[in-house]
Amino acid sequence: MAENLTTTVSSKSQTVDINRALPTVVIGERINPTGRKKLQAELEAHQFNIAQHDANAQVLAGATILDVNAGVPDGDEPTLIQETLRAVMAVTDVPLCIDTADPDALAAALEIYEGKALVNSVNGETHSLEKMLPLVKEHGAAVIGLCMDDDGIPSLPEKRLAVAGKIIERAAKLGIPIEDVVIDPLVLTVSVDSNAAVLTLKTTELIVKEFGVNITMGASNVSFGLPDRSAINAAFMAMAIQAGLTCPITNPLDPDLALAVLAADLVMGKDEWGDRWITAYRSRNKPA
Amino acid sequence: MAENLTTTVSSKSQTVDINRALPTVVIGERINPTGRKKLQAELEAHQFNIAQHDANAQVLAGATILDVNAGVPDGDEPTLIQETLRAVMAVTDVPLCIDTADPDALAAALEIYEGKALVNSVNGETHSLEKMLPLVKEHGAAVIGLCMDDDGIPSLPEKRLAVAGKIIERAAKLGIPIEDVVIDPLVLTVSVDSNAAVLTLKTTELIVKEFGVNITMGASNVSFGLPDRSAINAAFMAMAIQAGLTCPITNPLDPDLALAVLAADLVMGKDEWGDRWITAYRSRNKPA
Repeated sequence: MAENLTTTVSSKSQTVDINRALPTVVIGERINPTGRKKLQAELEAHQFNIAQHDANAQVLAGATILDVNAGVPDGDEPTLIQETLRAVMAVTDVPLCIDTADPDALAAALEIYEGKALVNSVNGETHSLEKMLPLVKEHGAAVIGLCMDDDGIPSLPEKRLAVAGKIIERAAKLGIPIEDVVIDPLVLTVSVDSNAAVLTLKTTELIVKEFGVNITMGASNVSFGLPDRSAINAAFMAMAIQAGLTCPITNPLDPDLALAVLAADLVMGKDEWGDRWITAYRSRNKPA
Repeated sequence: MAENLTTTVSSKSQTVDINRALPTVVIGERINPTGRKKLQAELEAHQFNIAQHDANAQVLAGATILDVNAGVPDGDEPTLIQETLRAVMAVTDVPLCIDTADPDALAAALEIYEGKALVNSVNGETHSLEKMLPLVKEHGAAVIGLCMDDDGIPSLPEKRLAVAGKIIERAAKLGIPIEDVVIDPLVLTVSVDSNAAVLTLKTTELIVKEFGVNITMGASNVSFGLPDRSAINAAFMAMAIQAGLTCPITNPLDPDLALAVLAADLVMGKDEWGDRWITAYRSRNKPA
């Protein structure tokens, strides 16, 4: 059983520690134009009202890191991610997660980011490792590694573990310490493959046991194509936290999900006396 | 890793198999006068309208076994449990779980029960094992064993495992097969001890790995003394199913809990194509 490692990320003035013994760190997923037409139109027009609104709302709802994605079709991503990051940093001081697969956009983003960013993401593909990891090292960032490589997404937990190991090893060779690598075991959809979520949970347990690294995932994919998705996502979130998930990328504005994270932390002994649970309850039930 | 065992219980006409690869079996907890004054008053007056109503409502809400407890202060429990069982058997045909710690009441109940009952419960105390297990054997019933003994409730998972082992061994000596022993690892309250639920989850994993037996628990105790209890219970339920819980004794009329069980089964790959999830969704959203 590997020791639980601590990943530290920061903004100009705030530091967030991610560790399995600490409460779950929610990375707010909303600032991402994929599937959000209004946000996409705003980013294309170099406007950032929605992004700033989403930043504030997510922090208020408990996100302690915000994911920022500025990928729009035919957009100038390096410029756009710089502008979006600046707009978000102007309204909030939580650490940010730079969400891009484009090395040029990543370089531009890291250049202007103030603090130690989390980079979302690299994967086990040769191209990704060669282009992205040196930038992570150069700027002293932390990085998310996805359990997929040139052969695709493995369908066995042991093979996803091997991809995680490859990413950790490549990072180490460049001088990126293992605690700065956060692994995403990947979640597919249970309505397509009944075994998809079990595979993710098993992969998570294996990676935690072997490496002790922090684990992220975008949990909502699990329920795609089914009704009452947030109830499925909430149950899966609790089960993933039990398996070792420490920093989900998720929507803190979904009350079911937010409650599931708090409840799972309480059950896992990460909320002594239920202090956070009770505080959140009072805040929800405050007279208007 | 022990093989997953199947516990079979039955009524006159229905059989229920409990196995970790099958959907979770909900044992309805409502027919129990503890803390329910109206039900208690009815049972004291030898009336069974509430019990019969609870039986029907719980089966409609998805319970496939019903727990029946007729323990009222100064009541004649052997007579009262016979009467309550008869009243319940008159309105529903699901298998029943006979809930008593009194050997005389158990003997009376097993005498009139038609089918293979589940007995709730024995524990590792010498007195309990000596008085209750021979009745279980005599009537060919299945039995729930609680992980506590003459020394109380152990505070280490390994010691609760040892109590489970003792109960299984004593049962085997009397000729009760291991698959007819369902273990309750016991759930205490997280607001009193932050580690209480983790201890239950770890105990569950250990028992499943060692013996492969089915696991029950009364999950709602975990949230005692805290607000928004059903959200905590729902998260804990999902996590306990992940750990190996197969037949919770719970309230199927609590919509959060019922959803959590269905969602956990879906996530654990026990609901192929999401058929049960979608059926339940349609039933909830049927036009009145």
